[in-house]
Amino acid sequence: MIRVTYEEMKGQFERVLLSRGMDEGDTRLCAQLIADTSLEGVYTHGAHRFPTFIDLIDRGVVNVKERAVRIASHGVLERWDGNSGVGNLNAHASMSRAIELAKSHTIGIVALKNTNHWMRPGTYGIMAGEAGCIGILWTNTIALMPAWGGLDAKVGNNPLVIAIPAKEGVILIDMAMSLFSYGKMEGYVREGKPLPVAGGWDTAGNLTDDAQAILESKRPLPIGFWKGTSLALMLDLVAASLSGGRTTEEISRLGDEQGVSQVFVAMNLSSFDDREEIERRISASLASINASEPIEAGGQVRWPGQNRLKIREENLRLGIPTNEGVWKAILAL
Amino acid sequence: MIRVTYEEMKGQFERVLLSRGMDEGDTRLCAQLIADTSLEGVYTHGAHRFPTFIDLIDRGVVNVKERAVRIASHGVLERWDGNSGVGNLNAHASMSRAIELAKSHTIGIVALKNTNHWMRPGTYGIMAGEAGCIGILWTNTIALMPAWGGLDAKVGNNPLVIAIPAKEGVILIDMAMSLFSYGKMEGYVREGKPLPVAGGWDTAGNLTDDAQAILESKRPLPIGFWKGTSLALMLDLVAASLSGGRTTEEISRLGDEQGVSQVFVAMNLSSFDDREEIERRISASLASINASEPIEAGGQVRWPGQNRLKIREENLRLGIPTNEGVWKAILAL
Repeated sequence: MIRVTYEEMKGQFERVLLSRGMDEGDTRLCAQLIADTSLEGVYTHGAHRFPTFIDLIDRGVVNVKERAVRIASHGVLERWDGNSGVGNLNAHASMSRAIELAKSHTIGIVALKNTNHWMRPGTYGIMAGEAGCIGILWTNTIALMPAWGGLDAKVGNNPLVIAIPAKEGVILIDMAMSLFSYGKMEGYVREGKPLPVAGGWDTAGNLTDDAQAILESKRPLPIGFWKGTSLALMLDLVAASLSGGRTTEEISRLGDEQGVSQVFVAMNLSSFDDREEIERRISASLASINASEPIEAGGQVRWPGQNRLKIREENLRLGIPTNEGVWKAILAL
Repeated sequence: MIRVTYEEMKGQFERVLLSRGMDEGDTRLCAQLIADTSLEGVYTHGAHRFPTFIDLIDRGVVNVKERAVRIASHGVLERWDGNSGVGNLNAHASMSRAIELAKSHTIGIVALKNTNHWMRPGTYGIMAGEAGCIGILWTNTIALMPAWGGLDAKVGNNPLVIAIPAKEGVILIDMAMSLFSYGKMEGYVREGKPLPVAGGWDTAGNLTDDAQAILESKRPLPIGFWKGTSLALMLDLVAASLSGGRTTEEISRLGDEQGVSQVFVAMNLSSFDDREEIERRISASLASINASEPIEAGGQVRWPGQNRLKIREENLRLGIPTNEGVWKAILAL
């Protein structure tokens, strides 16, 4: 691990994206979103994914010239077409629009089809939270897990994000339907470390903490066993139905993961005249979590997202921890 | 286990509810919802919960004379107050209204505060599905699980339901944030059986398949470990914020579980002109799940809810399997 400054990282991303023909304004936002992801400690979905992202551009899966556009309006729900454009820019545009709708109508929903991997899902939840809105969003993916009782990958791991604005900061969950996301497992492989607990089965059907073996078998452990695969299927079908886009079953027939379906929901808490009471209630809940009796003496029980701003501040000051091999690869792009 | 006919079961529920002063029309619907729950095989949340439900009425926690009423309207989202009325009737009224809103506006949301345990969560998802709508709904509960890393119960297990209409029937998930719901664990205790896999920790901190030990420790295993408790917290805070109602933290200070907050979302698929394409896509996904290579030779991989109508038909024909002790208790109420 080396440490790279935020400005240096963002600058390198901009240089590479411009070289791929991305428009200057888009380049600034796209590079910033990826650098922010690493800055906040989600290394697997930030710099460490950048070379894969550029490879998808070079192979024509991601089209840097296209943007998401609205194709239909159903009151507070709009359908947008991502036109195989840049995943994080499409998601940013969609969540921006959902927030705008929520500011006028309490609720705003954008259902986006035909888009690409959105990098860090939590990014768009934080956007909602910082705008005073609850954000709920999810994506489907290529098939990455068997259905419960099956051997062959049939369902996506379809990350789900929920973000809630609070006086203490944005409360945030950002979770794949497998115990470990593929990005996280790739991180363990890169570092040559075992997973902290068994995260799936190997091709021989044995539970294992060897991330590489799970990436090969495509049999990660779903959250809650039978519950995780079922929830993944439902998120997939809701996203495809609302957006009029592809299901995991259809995406999986394309080879590469592309043309995925996503849903962005914003709910504006400022629409309610008891907004202060809501904040007070949330603060009491967070305090109660922090007041938990810890399993390990001296341990601290935190609410989801509690450490985010601390990590951000530390990485801004010291530089962003980055895998040296990945950084060299980025410099060579 | 004995078998009780659907009509006999519903009749006994009606007799008992009328004796508690419930209005005749409410009695018919309330009894039917509970009998349907057992009819569809969810015994733990149907007849087996009925004596507890009556006890809550007798102790004044559930007020059979009160109904949910709308208290505020924010476009497609309405806030309702359950007035400490009957949980399943309040939930039925709320989902009915959400569906009505969705029929006019594509999306309909009712956020309900101050209500009681809704019995079987899936009931209201099926309502949405049968009306051609996607249904997404959840409730908060009294604290039933520690936050991750903690020992004392701080978060609810906050069941989440997603239902999707399909030509093959309503696809349905109905899941608590613990691996096993409290109702299910109580069922295992009643039958004197161990859980099929470890479902939580005992008071000494050992993982166990002894449901009674987990009910005592209030340390069930959350789905996806750290993910399940975080998701539970988010569902709680969203429900309380949208409804203006109590959080798990506040409910837990009341002693009995009461005055909970719930959210009912309906999304009308008939609003979309590609409804047939959506159905075709869903059918292809369900067929793909069923075509999984099974882990066990001869096994069948099913989609969530696939067996529901079969169980319903079988129990209608043969009678509903019911714990004999519970049935005697119901007859004596």
